[in-house]
Amino acid sequence: MASPLSPQTITCKAAVAWGPGEPMSIEEVQVAPPQPMEVRIKVVATTICRSDITLWESRGHIPIFPRIFGHEATGIVESVGEGVTDLREGDHVLTVFQGECKKCRHCKSDKSNACETLGVEGNGLMHSDQKTRFSINGKPIYHFVGVSSFSEYTVVHSECVVKLSPDVPLGKISVLGCSVATGFGAAWKIANVGKGSTVVIFGLGAVGLAVAQGAKLRGASRIIGVDINPDKFERGKIFGVTEFINPNDYKQPTQEVVKEITTGGADYCFECVGNVELMRTALESCCDGWGMAVLIGVPSGKMELSAHYGPLLNGRTLKGTLLGGWKTRSELPTLVEMYMKKEIQIDEYVTHELPFADINKGYQLMKEGKCLRCVLHVVI
Amino acid sequence: MASPLSPQTITCKAAVAWGPGEPMSIEEVQVAPPQPMEVRIKVVATTICRSDITLWESRGHIPIFPRIFGHEATGIVESVGEGVTDLREGDHVLTVFQGECKKCRHCKSDKSNACETLGVEGNGLMHSDQKTRFSINGKPIYHFVGVSSFSEYTVVHSECVVKLSPDVPLGKISVLGCSVATGFGAAWKIANVGKGSTVVIFGLGAVGLAVAQGAKLRGASRIIGVDINPDKFERGKIFGVTEFINPNDYKQPTQEVVKEITTGGADYCFECVGNVELMRTALESCCDGWGMAVLIGVPSGKMELSAHYGPLLNGRTLKGTLLGGWKTRSELPTLVEMYMKKEIQIDEYVTHELPFADINKGYQLMKEGKCLRCVLHVVI
Repeated sequence: MASPLSPQTITCKAAVAWGPGEPMSIEEVQVAPPQPMEVRIKVVATTICRSDITLWESRGHIPIFPRIFGHEATGIVESVGEGVTDLREGDHVLTVFQGECKKCRHCKSDKSNACETLGVEGNGLMHSDQKTRFSINGKPIYHFVGVSSFSEYTVVHSECVVKLSPDVPLGKISVLGCSVATGFGAAWKIANVGKGSTVVIFGLGAVGLAVAQGAKLRGASRIIGVDINPDKFERGKIFGVTEFINPNDYKQPTQEVVKEITTGGADYCFECVGNVELMRTALESCCDGWGMAVLIGVPSGKMELSAHYGPLLNGRTLKGTLLGGWKTRSELPTLVEMYMKKEIQIDEYVTHELPFADINKGYQLMKEGKCLRCVLHVVI
Repeated sequence: MASPLSPQTITCKAAVAWGPGEPMSIEEVQVAPPQPMEVRIKVVATTICRSDITLWESRGHIPIFPRIFGHEATGIVESVGEGVTDLREGDHVLTVFQGECKKCRHCKSDKSNACETLGVEGNGLMHSDQKTRFSINGKPIYHFVGVSSFSEYTVVHSECVVKLSPDVPLGKISVLGCSVATGFGAAWKIANVGKGSTVVIFGLGAVGLAVAQGAKLRGASRIIGVDINPDKFERGKIFGVTEFINPNDYKQPTQEVVKEITTGGADYCFECVGNVELMRTALESCCDGWGMAVLIGVPSGKMELSAHYGPLLNGRTLKGTLLGGWKTRSELPTLVEMYMKKEIQIDEYVTHELPFADINKGYQLMKEGKCLRCVLHVVI
């Protein structure tokens, strides 16, 4: 029997993606014990994020398979590796794809959340030893951004988790691990949306709607949602969207529509789809002088964006963000507190809930634009 | 005889550009009286700026000819149009290509200098009536960005001039009308360069060196100048450049060199050439998290810049500026005062002085990279 000091390999169920775009299959996988500074987590709930799909489809991205996706999750620490002092078995946690070592120049700067030690892990391996903790009969299964929460158990770096108070419900709050936190941060920390401003949001998924909610809480007077799926408009109102543009309803390019209805362009535009053409549209939809386009979506397919130099020279700003600029361990607890005090909506982003085994259904719902967030219940 | 209330057409000498890249010829031109809210100025001194060359060459820009170039100038008000109350005959002035009406939403915002009424005039006509004030025997000669200072007399909007105290020498200070002000503003207002930061400057012309001086005054600890002309390195030291990179000395791309010597990228990069490939290089030379690339140069040839989404998503910012963000009439007087108090260097940017008639020699010096700024003395 494993003692807390010497955890053993666990065999459990995980959704393994064997190839780009291929339906995942629930497999028995071996999850190695946490290595130094790592923790092994029993996943309770995990939500499907757009980038779990983008990287699974792998268009324009390096395909890394077989792989276990998933990065928005809550869980309970099952065991801890050597050297972990601030987490212990039984702790409730939120996983994050961007860690915070609190020691590097980025963690020490108040301008960055791009931790140099625990930044986005893009090669499917663990930060510390460039190996995997997952395997099937000895064959390694790759990780996804250091989290891989589509598994009953996963191993993550202890500085890639946010500790939660035991009274925080472990279901829907997983969206604070990525999408919803990103949207709030984009509006508050990156754009610093001010009272009375005009905001345009391209893409009304969970991230876009969190931008809307963030902008609304900051007193933006016009929040214009752009989406080609009109089903999203009614839901958008709940989060503060005041006007809608369906590009399919216009002959003119969207930037012309925005310029017309805003008399010269919006104060802030947010690209929440992951499309380099839309990134350009966002920049062109801003006003001169102070207009800012914030890029949030991870592109699929084409990775290069282009822009005429003119709008930039006229004072516009193009800026991107990962996780809304939040320093994960230091700052995300504030969002959790705001949720507990009902100062921000979180539950409303979860439109679907499914048992873990139905993960492919969840992917389908996301791909069809029918769902904002689908919680997969790993522990029933 | 013209009274101050009814000024007549003046016939004087101007350098007329008849076609893209063709040597200018000194011609007798008619300069109409100033229209409402305009002033006619006797030009005293004018400097040649890179964009006087870029637009004269017209590669990638709409060719507008015949045209009188020139926009960095000092002069004396000769007559004023109807409604002008804050300027009168005899006032000393600095011309600017970006006016300040003080009434529009940009002028009223503290975030913008992109005056909506008196922004950069790009079609060769005057803002108010879309006509020219210059002609030769009835044939209109086009203006350049509302200034056209390569003429003994010119007509400009009264809100496109900065009034100077009579004790300010009217020669070299013309560089504060564009280049040098732009460089200071880019460092101070746009990037807000902080103490101890690392700055990379692409292009060590007058704008680039003003960025260097601005960064030095803010306490930047490393100011890295990039230029393919090694002659510029020695001069750069005068303005604060601490290190030099000649891209021709390296096999690696410049962004790799910068990343290596700055351990991950610079805090701020300034593109002062006007080359869309270099704009990309500037973005790629920044560090993640807070790195900012400031675009200043007006491109010649290709106008579209491209970038991989990655550096932006990792927290970098791409931003441009016209005139360094200075509100011309309100804020440039501060720079003039600093010059008079010897808090900033100005004279050092002027490496050549020529009589007005030698304007083509001045252009040649600039094109060959032999000169920072050449003052053309219009009034001898």
